[in-house]
Amino acid sequence: MTDTKNTRVGFIGLGIMGRSMAGHILAAGHPLWVYNRSREKAAETLAAGATWCDTPAAVAAQSEVVITMVGNPSDVEQVWLGADGVLAGARDALLIDMTTSSPELARRLAAEAAQRACRALDAPVSGGEVGARDAKLSIMVGGAQDAFDAALPLLQLMGANIVRQGEAGAGQHTKMCNQIVIASTIMGVCEGLAYGKAAGLDLPTVLKSIGAGAAGGFQLSVMGGKIIEGDFAPGFFIEHFVKDLGIALAEAQRMQLDLPALALARKLYTGLVDQGHSRLGTQALFKHYEARS
Amino acid sequence: MTDTKNTRVGFIGLGIMGRSMAGHILAAGHPLWVYNRSREKAAETLAAGATWCDTPAAVAAQSEVVITMVGNPSDVEQVWLGADGVLAGARDALLIDMTTSSPELARRLAAEAAQRACRALDAPVSGGEVGARDAKLSIMVGGAQDAFDAALPLLQLMGANIVRQGEAGAGQHTKMCNQIVIASTIMGVCEGLAYGKAAGLDLPTVLKSIGAGAAGGFQLSVMGGKIIEGDFAPGFFIEHFVKDLGIALAEAQRMQLDLPALALARKLYTGLVDQGHSRLGTQALFKHYEARS
Repeated sequence: MTDTKNTRVGFIGLGIMGRSMAGHILAAGHPLWVYNRSREKAAETLAAGATWCDTPAAVAAQSEVVITMVGNPSDVEQVWLGADGVLAGARDALLIDMTTSSPELARRLAAEAAQRACRALDAPVSGGEVGARDAKLSIMVGGAQDAFDAALPLLQLMGANIVRQGEAGAGQHTKMCNQIVIASTIMGVCEGLAYGKAAGLDLPTVLKSIGAGAAGGFQLSVMGGKIIEGDFAPGFFIEHFVKDLGIALAEAQRMQLDLPALALARKLYTGLVDQGHSRLGTQALFKHYEARS
Repeated sequence: MTDTKNTRVGFIGLGIMGRSMAGHILAAGHPLWVYNRSREKAAETLAAGATWCDTPAAVAAQSEVVITMVGNPSDVEQVWLGADGVLAGARDALLIDMTTSSPELARRLAAEAAQRACRALDAPVSGGEVGARDAKLSIMVGGAQDAFDAALPLLQLMGANIVRQGEAGAGQHTKMCNQIVIASTIMGVCEGLAYGKAAGLDLPTVLKSIGAGAAGGFQLSVMGGKIIEGDFAPGFFIEHFVKDLGIALAEAQRMQLDLPALALARKLYTGLVDQGHSRLGTQALFKHYEARS
């Protein structure tokens, strides 16, 4: 893999983000084999020159590096460990799961990969659709240093901030840190704006006062701005966020760590899912407060 | 007050922030009369040319503009409405309370001021000691437009981001928005870092991955950095933050607005006060999680 132009790459999971990421790999000149649960979502990538395979195992059989970017930990498990899964087809390959998934599963996959003479990395991302499209993702990587070094040229095609965080699982743990910080921050943004609205303040004027100080940050500026405009369209779906918060809470529980604000955020978001808001963006947490004001 | 160099100013409350703010007013050439509950804290300001008065009323009797910067709403009430208070001495003056205090009290003070032919503004600040020293405070102002216009030249000596938020009380309400956003954001920062620490991650490396993305902001970068260094020295005292959160919760309750994350933050911070941590900085919320990990 020193000549990165000729790395044979497999990509599994061609959702909105995966499609952009696979596109960058193709654009760099790598031959690409792909699989997706529903084949129609692969159309764009196939038109750009990728080759379809009928199973994850078939993708892996063709590839030196296999990247997976699917939905839930159970999807990851199926795609890697199923009868037609990546590990059934991989030989001496570097396997990279970029799904946001459980740290525990990441460690298990790394161990299973090692038993088949493969190397594995967990490499979840942040930056969303825009980050994927612009190849500006932040990529948080767990796994052995030599596997990280080997993967880096490919990861650099997709991301701008690529950091090895430690051994297997450390990438997923870091992503959980990210989601935990966001979970409470967006609650604070929603509560602050709900309070301001109830108090009769002009919210854009409030942002002029508080946006650049100690309350300032991405969630207040970007998500706060969307809330004020009544824009609840998804940058990141509530249903995916609830999944991530569930993983984080389960891991925290395993570590006997009590995270009450995270638990509260998950409760509020689960309430929104119950009200049919799972396909809105995370800033739609504001609806919880609106309904009560 | 069109010739701002000659405005006779009174300043009551020479704590760490008030001292810096009064210093900027003196440095601009205004004659200054001062009062502070404990006289020794006035020494620096008196040495710089201010004149001591024995009561708030005596300060107000000398001043066209009176600024108060004291501790709690009850202090504000005493300083403005007490027998020797500002309103007992003020004549045709512009009265500005820059304490973080209750919006309800701000409205009451404005009404009381109007009955004595005075104008009042609530103008709490954010930016802390550093902002006060560098005259870079964000100042959130409530009150009539003409009073704001009259006060602006003086406020500009102390702040860099001065915004009129509406009528009496709106400045305090805006400051509450600021504190409400911070309350949950710092919980998220502490929970994310506590999780990372429990997971065995290297926290400075975690910040490299998550510091510039959707979790990013002042609390994560500045307070997160201090937490990682074990620096719990006060930028802003926990005891003052607990006071502010109490005001915000009381106002929310009055507006029948349920803010569970704010309530949780106040509960956790109150627990730290009970453990003797009231004089640490707000980032010491991390100690709550450390004690449980």
